[in-house]
Amino acid sequence: MPDYPITSHNRVRRLPKRGRYDRRTVHAIIDEALICHVAFVRDRVPFVIPTLHARIGDSLLLHGARSSRLLRHLAEGHQVAVGITLIDGIVLARSVFHSSANYRSVVIHGKGRPIVSDDDKLEALEAFAEHVSPGRWADARLPNRKELNATTVIELPIDLASAKVRTGPPLDEAMDYSLPIWAGVLPLTLTPGKPVPDPQRMRRVVVPGYVKRYRR
Amino acid sequence: MPDYPITSHNRVRRLPKRGRYDRRTVHAIIDEALICHVAFVRDRVPFVIPTLHARIGDSLLLHGARSSRLLRHLAEGHQVAVGITLIDGIVLARSVFHSSANYRSVVIHGKGRPIVSDDDKLEALEAFAEHVSPGRWADARLPNRKELNATTVIELPIDLASAKVRTGPPLDEAMDYSLPIWAGVLPLTLTPGKPVPDPQRMRRVVVPGYVKRYRR
Repeated sequence: MPDYPITSHNRVRRLPKRGRYDRRTVHAIIDEALICHVAFVRDRVPFVIPTLHARIGDSLLLHGARSSRLLRHLAEGHQVAVGITLIDGIVLARSVFHSSANYRSVVIHGKGRPIVSDDDKLEALEAFAEHVSPGRWADARLPNRKELNATTVIELPIDLASAKVRTGPPLDEAMDYSLPIWAGVLPLTLTPGKPVPDPQRMRRVVVPGYVKRYRR
Repeated sequence: MPDYPITSHNRVRRLPKRGRYDRRTVHAIIDEALICHVAFVRDRVPFVIPTLHARIGDSLLLHGARSSRLLRHLAEGHQVAVGITLIDGIVLARSVFHSSANYRSVVIHGKGRPIVSDDDKLEALEAFAEHVSPGRWADARLPNRKELNATTVIELPIDLASAKVRTGPPLDEAMDYSLPIWAGVLPLTLTPGKPVPDPQRMRRVVVPGYVKRYRR
Protein backbone atom coordinates (compact mmCIF):
# COMPACT_ATOMS: atom_id res chain seq x y z
CA MET A 1 0.00 0.00 0.00
CA PRO A 2 1.44 3.39 -0.92
CA ASP A 3 1.94 5.85 1.93
CA TYR A 4 2.74 8.66 -0.48
CA PRO A 5 0.58 10.10 -3.26
CA ILE A 6 1.86 9.06 -6.68
CA THR A 7 2.13 12.18 -8.85
CA SER A 8 4.01 13.25 -11.96
CA HIS A 9 6.82 14.34 -9.63
CA ASN A 10 7.56 11.12 -7.84
CA ARG A 11 6.12 8.39 -10.04
CA VAL A 12 8.77 5.87 -11.07
CA ARG A 13 8.48 5.87 -14.87
CA ARG A 14 11.35 3.68 -16.02
CA LEU A 15 10.80 0.07 -14.87
CA PRO A 16 7.74 0.96 -12.76
CA LYS A 17 7.72 -2.44 -11.06
CA ARG A 18 10.82 -1.34 -9.19
CA GLY A 19 8.89 1.59 -7.68
CA ARG A 20 7.97 1.63 -3.97
CA TYR A 21 5.83 4.21 -2.26
CA ASP A 22 5.73 2.92 1.31
CA ARG A 23 7.13 4.79 4.27
CA ARG A 24 9.03 1.80 5.65
CA THR A 25 11.12 1.25 2.50
CA VAL A 26 11.75 4.98 2.05
CA HIS A 27 12.78 5.53 5.69
CA ALA A 28 15.12 2.50 5.73
CA ILE A 29 17.03 3.79 2.69
CA ILE A 30 17.29 7.31 4.13
CA ASP A 31 18.56 5.94 7.44
CA GLU A 32 21.18 3.66 5.94
CA ALA A 33 22.63 6.23 3.53
CA LEU A 34 25.18 8.67 4.88
CA ILE A 35 24.66 11.39 2.30
CA CYS A 36 22.14 12.76 -0.16
CA HIS A 37 22.29 14.91 -3.29
CA VAL A 38 20.14 18.04 -3.16
CA ALA A 39 19.00 19.42 -6.53
CA PHE A 40 17.73 22.98 -6.77
CA VAL A 41 17.10 25.66 -9.38
CA ARG A 42 18.61 29.11 -9.45
CA ASP A 43 18.12 31.48 -12.37
CA ARG A 44 16.49 28.54 -14.18
CA VAL A 45 19.73 26.56 -13.94
CA PRO A 46 19.93 23.20 -12.10
CA PHE A 47 22.45 22.74 -9.29
CA VAL A 48 23.26 19.67 -7.24
CA ILE A 49 25.14 19.52 -3.94
CA PRO A 50 26.00 16.45 -1.84
CA THR A 51 25.47 16.78 1.89
CA LEU A 52 24.95 14.74 5.06
CA HIS A 53 21.36 14.22 6.13
CA ALA A 54 19.37 12.84 9.05
CA ARG A 55 15.74 11.94 9.68
CA ILE A 56 13.30 12.51 12.52
CA GLY A 57 9.91 10.90 11.92
CA ASP A 58 8.53 12.11 8.61
CA SER A 59 11.10 14.88 8.14
CA LEU A 60 14.39 14.82 6.31
CA LEU A 61 16.91 17.11 8.01
CA LEU A 62 19.68 19.05 6.27
CA HIS A 63 22.18 21.31 7.97
CA GLY A 64 25.17 23.49 7.34
CA ALA A 65 26.74 26.85 7.85
CA ARG A 66 24.31 29.73 8.03
CA SER A 67 26.29 31.37 5.20
CA SER A 68 26.02 28.40 2.81
CA ARG A 69 24.28 29.06 -0.50
CA LEU A 70 22.44 25.75 -0.32
CA LEU A 71 21.23 26.37 3.22
CA ARG A 72 20.06 29.89 2.42
CA HIS A 73 18.23 28.58 -0.63
CA LEU A 74 16.55 25.88 1.45
CA ALA A 75 15.68 28.33 4.22
CA GLU A 76 13.94 30.51 1.64
CA GLY A 77 11.56 27.62 0.97
CA HIS A 78 12.37 26.94 -2.67
CA GLN A 79 11.36 23.62 -4.16
CA VAL A 80 14.13 20.98 -4.07
CA ALA A 81 14.57 17.35 -5.05
CA VAL A 82 16.71 15.13 -2.87
CA GLY A 83 18.25 11.92 -4.22
CA ILE A 84 19.61 9.21 -1.93
CA THR A 85 21.15 6.06 -3.38
CA LEU A 86 22.66 2.89 -1.94
CA ILE A 87 24.64 0.55 -4.20
CA ASP A 88 24.21 -3.09 -3.26
CA GLY A 89 26.10 -4.81 -6.03
CA ILE A 90 26.89 -5.12 -9.68
CA VAL A 91 24.70 -7.37 -11.78
CA LEU A 92 26.63 -9.24 -14.44
CA ALA A 93 24.19 -10.52 -17.03
CA ARG A 94 25.37 -12.73 -19.88
CA SER A 95 24.56 -9.82 -22.21
CA VAL A 96 26.02 -6.36 -21.80
CA PHE A 97 22.51 -5.01 -22.46
CA HIS A 98 20.96 -6.61 -19.37
CA SER A 99 23.91 -5.92 -17.07
CA SER A 100 22.90 -3.60 -14.28
CA ALA A 101 23.38 -2.74 -10.63
CA ASN A 102 21.46 -3.70 -7.53
CA TYR A 103 20.54 -0.52 -5.72
CA ARG A 104 18.01 1.13 -3.44
CA SER A 105 17.25 4.78 -4.10
CA VAL A 106 14.86 7.42 -2.82
CA VAL A 107 13.82 10.74 -4.29
CA ILE A 108 12.00 13.31 -2.16
CA HIS A 109 10.33 16.41 -3.59
CA GLY A 110 9.42 19.31 -1.37
CA LYS A 111 10.19 22.62 0.26
CA GLY A 112 12.22 23.04 3.40
CA ARG A 113 11.73 25.30 6.37
CA PRO A 114 14.31 26.39 8.93
CA ILE A 115 14.16 24.97 12.43
CA VAL A 116 14.36 27.96 14.75
CA SER A 117 13.91 27.01 18.41
CA ASP A 118 17.07 25.98 20.26
CA ASP A 119 15.45 22.81 21.56
CA ASP A 120 14.35 21.63 18.13
CA LYS A 121 17.72 22.55 16.68
CA LEU A 122 19.56 20.55 19.34
CA GLU A 123 17.25 17.60 18.76
CA ALA A 124 18.06 17.81 15.04
CA LEU A 125 21.81 18.06 15.67
CA GLU A 126 21.54 14.98 17.88
CA ALA A 127 19.81 13.21 14.98
CA PHE A 128 22.72 14.13 12.66
CA ALA A 129 25.35 12.95 15.14
CA GLU A 130 23.50 9.70 15.74
CA HIS A 131 22.81 9.21 12.02
CA VAL A 132 26.51 9.41 11.20
CA SER A 133 27.68 7.49 14.27
CA PRO A 134 25.11 6.05 16.68
CA GLY A 135 26.35 6.56 20.23
CA ARG A 136 28.39 9.66 19.48
CA TRP A 137 26.04 12.30 20.95
CA ALA A 138 26.43 10.95 24.51
CA ASP A 139 30.23 11.04 24.15
CA ALA A 140 31.14 14.18 22.20
CA ARG A 141 31.35 17.83 23.26
CA LEU A 142 27.89 19.22 22.51
CA PRO A 143 27.25 22.41 20.50
CA ASN A 144 27.65 25.69 22.38
CA ARG A 145 25.68 28.89 21.83
CA LYS A 146 28.04 30.23 19.16
CA GLU A 147 28.03 26.95 17.23
CA LEU A 148 24.26 26.67 17.48
CA ASN A 149 23.88 30.17 16.05
CA ALA A 150 26.29 29.44 13.20
CA THR A 151 24.32 26.38 12.08
CA THR A 152 21.20 26.41 9.94
CA VAL A 153 19.00 23.33 10.20
CA ILE A 154 16.32 22.65 7.60
CA GLU A 155 13.37 20.35 7.94
CA LEU A 156 11.98 18.91 4.70
CA PRO A 157 8.68 17.04 5.05
CA ILE A 158 8.91 13.58 3.48
CA ASP A 159 5.45 13.54 1.99
CA LEU A 160 6.11 13.33 -1.72
CA ALA A 161 8.65 10.55 -2.01
CA SER A 162 9.32 7.36 -3.90
CA ALA A 163 11.85 4.57 -3.75
CA LYS A 164 13.27 2.44 -6.54
CA VAL A 165 14.79 -0.90 -5.70
CA ARG A 166 16.55 -3.55 -7.76
CA THR A 167 17.52 -6.81 -6.10
CA GLY A 168 18.39 -10.32 -7.20
CA PRO A 169 20.13 -12.03 -10.09
CA PRO A 170 20.45 -10.84 -13.70
CA LEU A 171 17.56 -11.33 -16.07
CA ASP A 172 18.86 -12.42 -19.45
CA GLU A 173 17.20 -13.12 -22.78
CA ALA A 174 16.02 -16.74 -22.89
CA MET A 175 18.49 -17.71 -25.61
CA ASP A 176 21.45 -16.26 -23.72
CA TYR A 177 21.18 -18.67 -20.78
CA SER A 178 22.96 -21.35 -22.79
CA LEU A 179 26.04 -19.17 -23.37
CA PRO A 180 29.19 -20.23 -21.49
CA ILE A 181 29.43 -16.84 -19.74
CA TRP A 182 29.56 -16.45 -15.97
CA ALA A 183 26.58 -14.47 -14.70
CA GLY A 184 25.59 -13.36 -11.25
CA VAL A 185 25.83 -10.60 -8.70
CA LEU A 186 28.92 -9.18 -7.04
CA PRO A 187 27.68 -7.67 -3.75
CA LEU A 188 29.17 -4.33 -2.69
CA THR A 189 28.93 -2.96 0.85
CA LEU A 190 30.25 0.17 2.50
CA THR A 191 32.62 -1.38 5.01
CA PRO A 192 34.35 0.27 7.99
CA GLY A 193 38.11 -0.15 8.25
CA LYS A 194 40.37 0.18 11.26
CA PRO A 195 39.74 3.41 13.22
CA VAL A 196 42.57 5.94 12.76
CA PRO A 197 43.11 7.97 15.95
CA ASP A 198 43.72 11.69 15.53
CA PRO A 199 47.52 12.00 15.55
CA GLN A 200 47.33 15.50 16.97
CA ARG A 201 47.57 15.73 20.75
CA MET A 202 45.55 12.54 21.16
CA ARG A 203 45.06 11.61 24.78
CA ARG A 204 45.13 7.97 25.68
CA VAL A 205 41.47 7.28 25.18
CA VAL A 206 40.31 3.86 24.06
CA VAL A 207 38.34 3.54 20.83
CA PRO A 208 34.67 3.58 21.86
CA GLY A 209 32.60 0.44 21.27
CA TYR A 210 30.24 2.27 18.92
CA VAL A 211 33.23 3.04 16.65
CA LYS A 212 34.74 -0.46 16.89
CA ARG A 213 31.42 -2.10 16.10
CA TYR A 214 30.36 0.46 13.50
CA ARG A 215 28.02 -0.78 10.79
CA ARG A 216 26.25 1.17 8.05
CA MET B 1 46.71 24.82 -11.75
CA PRO B 2 43.03 24.80 -12.64
CA ASP B 3 42.07 22.99 -15.87
CA TYR B 4 38.52 24.29 -15.69
CA PRO B 5 37.33 27.90 -15.66
CA ILE B 6 36.06 28.92 -12.22
CA THR B 7 32.65 30.51 -12.61
CA SER B 8 29.60 31.18 -10.45
CA HIS B 9 28.35 27.72 -11.50
CA ASN B 10 31.21 25.54 -10.36
CA ARG B 11 33.10 27.64 -7.80
CA VAL B 12 33.31 25.87 -4.45
CA ARG B 13 31.87 28.45 -2.06
CA ARG B 14 31.66 26.68 1.28
CA LEU B 15 35.17 25.84 2.53
CA PRO B 16 36.86 26.99 -0.69
CA LYS B 17 40.20 25.46 0.33
CA ARG B 18 38.61 22.06 -0.33
CA GLY B 19 37.93 23.02 -3.96
CA ARG B 20 39.90 21.43 -6.80
CA TYR B 21 39.70 22.37 -10.44
CA ASP B 22 42.22 20.02 -12.04
CA ARG B 23 41.34 17.37 -14.57
CA ARG B 24 43.30 14.62 -12.83
CA THR B 25 41.37 14.90 -9.54
CA VAL B 26 38.02 15.24 -11.31
CA HIS B 27 38.61 12.26 -13.62
CA ALA B 28 39.82 10.00 -10.79
CA ILE B 29 36.62 10.63 -8.79
CA ILE B 30 34.38 10.05 -11.82
CA ASP B 31 36.20 6.80 -12.63
CA GLU B 32 36.06 5.40 -9.11
CA ALA B 33 32.36 6.17 -8.52
CA LEU B 34 29.82 3.71 -9.87
CA ILE B 35 26.91 6.15 -10.09
CA CYS B 36 26.07 9.82 -10.38
CA HIS B 37 23.03 11.98 -9.59
CA VAL B 38 21.74 14.02 -12.52
CA ALA B 39 19.82 17.20 -11.64
CA PHE B 40 17.62 18.85 -14.23
CA VAL B 41 14.79 21.35 -14.45
CA ARG B 42 11.36 20.77 -15.93
CA ASP B 43 8.58 23.32 -15.69
CA ARG B 44 10.87 25.27 -13.34
CA VAL B 45 10.91 22.32 -10.90
CA PRO B 46 14.15 20.53 -9.94
CA PHE B 47 14.45 16.76 -10.46
CA VAL B 48 17.26 14.41 -9.54
CA ILE B 49 17.83 10.89 -10.85
CA PRO B 50 20.63 8.46 -9.97
CA THR B 51 22.21 6.58 -12.85
CA LEU B 52 25.34 4.70 -13.88
CA HIS B 53 27.93 6.70 -15.77
CA ALA B 54 31.18 6.21 -17.66
CA ARG B 55 33.91 8.45 -19.03
CA ILE B 56 35.85 8.64 -22.27
CA GLY B 57 38.48 11.37 -22.30
CA ASP B 58 36.86 14.68 -21.43
CA SER B 59 33.28 13.41 -21.78
CA LEU B 60 30.95 12.00 -19.17
CA LEU B 61 28.68 9.35 -20.66
CA LEU B 62 25.12 8.62 -19.57
CA HIS B 63 22.87 5.98 -21.06
CA GLY B 64 19.50 4.38 -20.76
CA ALA B 65 16.34 3.38 -22.54
CA ARG B 66 15.40 5.56 -25.46
CA SER B 67 11.98 6.05 -23.80
CA SER B 68 13.39 7.32 -20.49
CA ARG B 69 12.36 10.82 -19.43
CA LEU B 70 15.88 11.62 -18.26
CA LEU B 71 17.48 10.42 -21.48
CA ARG B 72 15.01 12.34 -23.64
CA HIS B 73 15.64 15.46 -21.56
CA LEU B 74 19.39 15.03 -21.97
CA ALA B 75 19.09 14.33 -25.68
CA GLU B 76 17.19 17.62 -26.06
CA GLY B 77 20.29 19.42 -24.81
CA HIS B 78 18.89 20.98 -21.65
CA GLN B 79 21.34 22.18 -19.01
CA VAL B 80 22.04 19.62 -16.27
CA ALA B 81 24.19 19.37 -13.17
CA VAL B 82 25.76 16.02 -12.32
CA GLY B 83 26.90 15.20 -8.79
CA ILE B 84 29.28 12.34 -8.05
CA THR B 85 30.34 11.59 -4.48
CA LEU B 86 32.63 9.07 -2.82
CA ILE B 87 32.51 8.62 0.94
CA ASP B 88 35.92 7.81 2.43
CA GLY B 89 35.16 7.86 6.13
CA ILE B 90 33.48 9.48 9.06
CA VAL B 91 35.40 12.13 10.93
CA LEU B 92 34.80 12.04 14.66
CA ALA B 93 35.89 15.34 16.16
CA ARG B 94 35.83 15.89 19.90
CA SER B 95 33.01 18.39 19.29
CA VAL B 96 29.81 17.53 17.47
CA PHE B 97 30.21 20.83 15.60
CA HIS B 98 33.48 19.84 13.92
CA SER B 99 32.46 16.27 13.20
CA SER B 100 32.34 15.62 9.49
CA ALA B 101 32.98 13.11 6.75
CA ASN B 102 35.94 12.51 4.49
CA TYR B 103 34.72 12.55 0.92
CA ARG B 104 35.63 13.32 -2.68
CA SER B 105 32.93 14.85 -4.84
CA VAL B 106 32.60 16.27 -8.32
CA VAL B 107 29.94 18.48 -9.85
CA ILE B 108 29.75 18.93 -13.62
CA HIS B 109 27.59 21.56 -15.32
CA GLY B 110 26.72 21.28 -18.97
CA LYS B 111 24.51 20.18 -21.79
CA GLY B 112 24.51 16.72 -23.28
CA ARG B 113 24.26 15.57 -26.86
CA PRO B 114 23.24 12.16 -28.15
CA ILE B 115 25.84 9.87 -29.66
CA VAL B 116 24.43 8.73 -32.97
CA SER B 117 26.91 6.64 -34.96
CA ASP B 118 26.94 2.92 -34.23
CA ASP B 119 30.69 2.86 -33.78
CA ASP B 120 30.69 5.69 -31.26
CA LYS B 121 27.73 4.13 -29.44
CA LEU B 122 29.48 0.77 -29.20
CA GLU B 123 32.63 2.46 -27.94
CA ALA B 124 30.51 4.19 -25.27
CA LEU B 125 28.76 0.96 -24.26
CA GLU B 126 32.17 -0.65 -23.92
CA ALA B 127 33.17 2.20 -21.62
CA PHE B 128 30.08 1.56 -19.44
CA ALA B 129 30.73 -2.17 -19.25
CA GLU B 130 34.38 -1.59 -18.39
CA HIS B 131 33.54 1.18 -15.93
CA VAL B 132 31.24 -1.12 -13.97
CA SER B 133 33.42 -4.20 -14.29
CA PRO B 134 36.79 -3.97 -16.05
CA GLY B 135 37.28 -7.06 -18.20
CA ARG B 136 33.59 -7.68 -18.81
CA TRP B 137 33.32 -6.43 -22.40
CA ALA B 138 35.66 -9.14 -23.73
CA ASP B 139 33.60 -11.80 -21.96
CA ALA B 140 29.91 -10.84 -22.27
CA ARG B 141 27.46 -11.11 -25.16
CA LEU B 142 27.77 -7.79 -26.98
CA PRO B 143 24.79 -5.57 -27.91
CA ASN B 144 22.87 -6.56 -31.03
CA ARG B 145 21.15 -4.24 -33.48
CA LYS B 146 17.86 -4.19 -31.58
CA GLU B 147 19.58 -3.45 -28.26
CA LEU B 148 21.74 -0.77 -29.81
CA ASN B 149 18.62 0.95 -31.22
CA ALA B 150 16.82 0.76 -27.87
CA THR B 151 19.66 2.51 -26.04
CA THR B 152 20.27 6.24 -25.95
CA VAL B 153 23.80 7.31 -25.12
CA ILE B 154 24.55 10.89 -24.09
CA GLU B 155 27.90 12.61 -24.11
CA LEU B 156 28.32 15.48 -21.64
CA PRO B 157 31.51 17.50 -22.10
CA ILE B 158 33.40 17.80 -18.81
CA ASP B 159 34.50 21.40 -19.24
CA LEU B 160 32.78 23.17 -16.38
CA ALA B 161 33.55 20.99 -13.39
CA SER B 162 34.88 21.18 -9.88
CA ALA B 163 35.84 18.74 -7.18
CA LYS B 164 35.63 19.08 -3.43
CA VAL B 165 37.80 16.91 -1.24
CA ARG B 166 38.12 16.45 2.51
CA THR B 167 40.86 14.20 3.83
CA GLY B 168 42.66 13.69 7.12
CA PRO B 169 41.93 13.89 10.83
CA PRO B 170 39.35 16.07 12.58
CA LEU B 171 40.16 19.71 13.26
CA ASP B 172 38.93 20.65 16.72
CA GLU B 173 38.88 23.91 18.66
CA ALA B 174 42.19 24.35 20.51
CA MET B 175 40.59 24.04 23.94
CA ASP B 176 38.83 20.77 23.02
CA TYR B 177 42.05 18.80 22.49
CA SER B 178 42.38 18.30 26.23
CA LEU B 179 38.97 16.61 26.52
CA PRO B 180 39.04 12.86 27.24
CA ILE B 181 37.06 12.09 24.07
CA TRP B 182 38.26 9.69 21.41
CA ALA B 183 38.72 11.47 18.08
CA GLY B 184 39.79 10.24 14.69
CA VAL B 185 38.61 8.85 11.40
CA LEU B 186 36.73 5.66 10.70
CA PRO B 187 37.54 4.78 7.07
CA LEU B 188 34.69 3.48 4.90
CA THR B 189 35.23 1.66 1.62
CA LEU B 190 32.87 0.07 -0.89
CA THR B 191 33.96 -3.54 -0.58
CA PRO B 192 33.09 -6.48 -2.85
CA GLY B 193 31.68 -9.58 -1.21
CA LYS B 194 31.60 -13.16 -2.47
CA PRO B 195 30.24 -13.41 -6.03
CA VAL B 196 26.72 -14.91 -6.13
CA PRO B 197 26.23 -17.01 -9.29
CA ASP B 198 22.90 -16.68 -11.08
CA PRO B 199 20.82 -19.56 -9.68
CA GLN B 200 18.81 -19.78 -12.89
CA ARG B 201 20.12 -22.28 -15.42
CA MET B 202 23.71 -21.49 -14.54
CA ARG B 203 26.17 -23.50 -16.54
CA ARG B 204 29.31 -24.64 -14.85
CA VAL B 205 31.42 -21.63 -15.63
CA VAL B 206 34.14 -20.53 -13.23
CA VAL B 207 34.00 -17.07 -11.70
CA PRO B 208 36.20 -14.88 -13.95
CA GLY B 209 39.36 -13.42 -12.47
CA TYR B 210 38.12 -9.85 -13.04
CA VAL B 211 35.13 -10.61 -10.79
CA LYS B 212 37.18 -12.42 -8.13
CA ARG B 213 39.73 -9.64 -7.95
CA TYR B 214 37.19 -6.81 -8.28
CA ARG B 215 38.14 -3.51 -6.70
CA ARG B 216 36.38 -0.18 -6.83
